[in-house]
Amino acid sequence: MATARAFIPGARAMARCDQMGGVPYSEVEGQLVRRFLTPAHRAALDSLRLWMTEAGMSVRMDAAANLIGRYEGATPNAPALMVGSHIDTVRNGGRYDGALGVMLGVDVVEALNLAGRRRPFAIEVIAFGDEEGSRFPASMTCSRAVAGTIDASVLATCDAEGVSLADAFAAFGLSATDLAQAARKPIDVLAFLEPHIEQGPVLEAEDLSLGVVVAIAAQKRLMVKIIGAAGHAGTTPMGLRRDPGPGAAEAILAVERICSAGGDGLVGTVGRITALPGAFNVIPGAIEFSLDIRAATSATRDAAVEDIIDAIMDIGARRDLDFKIELLQDLAESPCDPALTDQLATAVAAVGLQPRRLQSGAGHDAMTMAALCPTAMLFLRCKGGVSHNPAEAVREDDCILAAQAMLAFIDALELNPTP
Amino acid sequence: MATARAFIPGARAMARCDQMGGVPYSEVEGQLVRRFLTPAHRAALDSLRLWMTEAGMSVRMDAAANLIGRYEGATPNAPALMVGSHIDTVRNGGRYDGALGVMLGVDVVEALNLAGRRRPFAIEVIAFGDEEGSRFPASMTCSRAVAGTIDASVLATCDAEGVSLADAFAAFGLSATDLAQAARKPIDVLAFLEPHIEQGPVLEAEDLSLGVVVAIAAQKRLMVKIIGAAGHAGTTPMGLRRDPGPGAAEAILAVERICSAGGDGLVGTVGRITALPGAFNVIPGAIEFSLDIRAATSATRDAAVEDIIDAIMDIGARRDLDFKIELLQDLAESPCDPALTDQLATAVAAVGLQPRRLQSGAGHDAMTMAALCPTAMLFLRCKGGVSHNPAEAVREDDCILAAQAMLAFIDALELNPTP
Repeated sequence: MATARAFIPGARAMARCDQMGGVPYSEVEGQLVRRFLTPAHRAALDSLRLWMTEAGMSVRMDAAANLIGRYEGATPNAPALMVGSHIDTVRNGGRYDGALGVMLGVDVVEALNLAGRRRPFAIEVIAFGDEEGSRFPASMTCSRAVAGTIDASVLATCDAEGVSLADAFAAFGLSATDLAQAARKPIDVLAFLEPHIEQGPVLEAEDLSLGVVVAIAAQKRLMVKIIGAAGHAGTTPMGLRRDPGPGAAEAILAVERICSAGGDGLVGTVGRITALPGAFNVIPGAIEFSLDIRAATSATRDAAVEDIIDAIMDIGARRDLDFKIELLQDLAESPCDPALTDQLATAVAAVGLQPRRLQSGAGHDAMTMAALCPTAMLFLRCKGGVSHNPAEAVREDDCILAAQAMLAFIDALELNPTP
Repeated sequence: MATARAFIPGARAMARCDQMGGVPYSEVEGQLVRRFLTPAHRAALDSLRLWMTEAGMSVRMDAAANLIGRYEGATPNAPALMVGSHIDTVRNGGRYDGALGVMLGVDVVEALNLAGRRRPFAIEVIAFGDEEGSRFPASMTCSRAVAGTIDASVLATCDAEGVSLADAFAAFGLSATDLAQAARKPIDVLAFLEPHIEQGPVLEAEDLSLGVVVAIAAQKRLMVKIIGAAGHAGTTPMGLRRDPGPGAAEAILAVERICSAGGDGLVGTVGRITALPGAFNVIPGAIEFSLDIRAATSATRDAAVEDIIDAIMDIGARRDLDFKIELLQDLAESPCDPALTDQLATAVAAVGLQPRRLQSGAGHDAMTMAALCPTAMLFLRCKGGVSHNPAEAVREDDCILAAQAMLAFIDALELNPTP
């Protein structure tokens, strides 16, 4: 006779993520690889369907292969608070990125069900089948389907084996032509709450369990080229050089200085740098480097980019260097709903924690769900900020606190906080 | 009937370099490519043999394919002042790099011969067949043969077509087994004077025609690796980064600052730089860059390298970064003979010019000849410091002044200036 282990909401969510950390929930022995519409995905959904049912939910798979467990409100067919995240992983990923948000949703509903409590709204736990884009070229396919923002052209894209997304849906027992049916009506969805590991070091550095996400960062990617004059490393005295290297060095320090002073989640990264032609004994003719600038708002980000460009112009004038700056990518910020975020912060405070507000530097399903409904994101501390890696780790007490905060949020949630 | 053009020493040297700027003195139509032991080399030696003879010299080819014209002193078999440089070029090279030094030697001897003047020493004009190493892997093969410092193993090295140096000598009518016979006895060689274009911008920048080389620079090549912690460009706040990029930037500025303040011909170049792993959205885990440091003396160079390492240690401590510094090459300086250089400076002053002393950042035959005898080098201004390029250019008036300075040097040369 099996001894039933006590059900501690949050602790069990973590244990279930651990349980799903290998075969059959992974495509690869000894790693965690769970990509969209694979047998590993199916195995995860089979277990999840069981767990959702046990938690008191009615379960269905939508046309985008999302598994949705619904816990009715006090009256049937009430609009739903949706809770969840993605169930897929990157190759050789971690156990908690995505899955923990789904399992926390199941735990929280089961706690409500065990207590026999219902709210005026339904709660739906959703496991998005693809967020990472680790099988097909597009990412966030499933939350885009739910938000109704997906383009059917994605169905023709193929994985590395040449299987189209449409064929993969068919093999999974779904019809690609039905994809649009996954879209939800705004009137049926009250809000979306996504619990997720931070994937960054902020909470750990501040010794905090939980964080409340205010926005997914606005991002610009630029390529900067500082142009001087190539020359012989041996025969050109220092005073006669137009070496772009020290100019680029000053620019990199300006990026650091400007972004460190910026606040509002501003970060700036030079991830690539190349000297041209790139020989030991040749003063470079040009230095190229990449620039990734993110902040909670486009305004903060753009002000930083302008300050950096001003600094480069000043360096160029002072050092007689030319420069070219090319904008490669411009993604606006995706703010979480302020009123909903305030309620989430209140819930975090209600369980005795400091409601640290922070931005997310990475993208999440909440970003696409914002097209459908107000969104809020709860971050959990993760060890060393490490993610997309087998070393990804969370603490059980943090998971328990996350479930408590989610329950407090659900208890206090007002249907129309901002008219 | 041809109208004889007036013989102006130096002007004719330049004209002869121009004449040899194409086929048959080049291997390639439309470019200047004159590599060791090729038909182009042979064509150059055929003309040179004629010109040397006309100038009053007895001409011979030594065992290393060097062409040597000898102008006897007041008494036969006196030790010789050797004057010259190399006759080979890099691929798509310039007309004056090397060849001008040989042609200036011929002009100067012809001027002495026309005036019926002989000195107590002989003068030998030498055209080294290989300095650039543009055909076989080794460079300065021919001056090393004359200085007696060549290793016979070089004979087994092959060009890009698989022809060994030994076979190339045979095809040129020489026996590789005789190579050692090219070595001169120190008692027979008084000194070596090498006129050469500067291949750098110093003289042009200071509006000077000529320079006196004090040394061929001491050089160290190092590879520096600044090591931090890789991280997500979006999720890692500025204050929690151990980004090696700004640390490397400070190091590059330290190289510039230290080398600019150093004097003694000190130059420092960062020619290569790489961020690892090198992705737009990843804070680099490490930055690697090359460091080429040269100065007139090893002492100055090494002091600069130590200052740079101190600066990097300071940066590492301040920014919590690690570093590795690897020494890849260490070439001591090759000073020109101080007494001979003083006499060359006096000769430059005697023709009314400021005797600007400078170092050579690049290597020259004089460096290897220093193993045999005292050496001195006369630099001629070259346009924009450009060399190893078809755009290489000199001024005719500078060539005339060079010949005048060489004649003044020969006139005043003391046999044993320093006992």
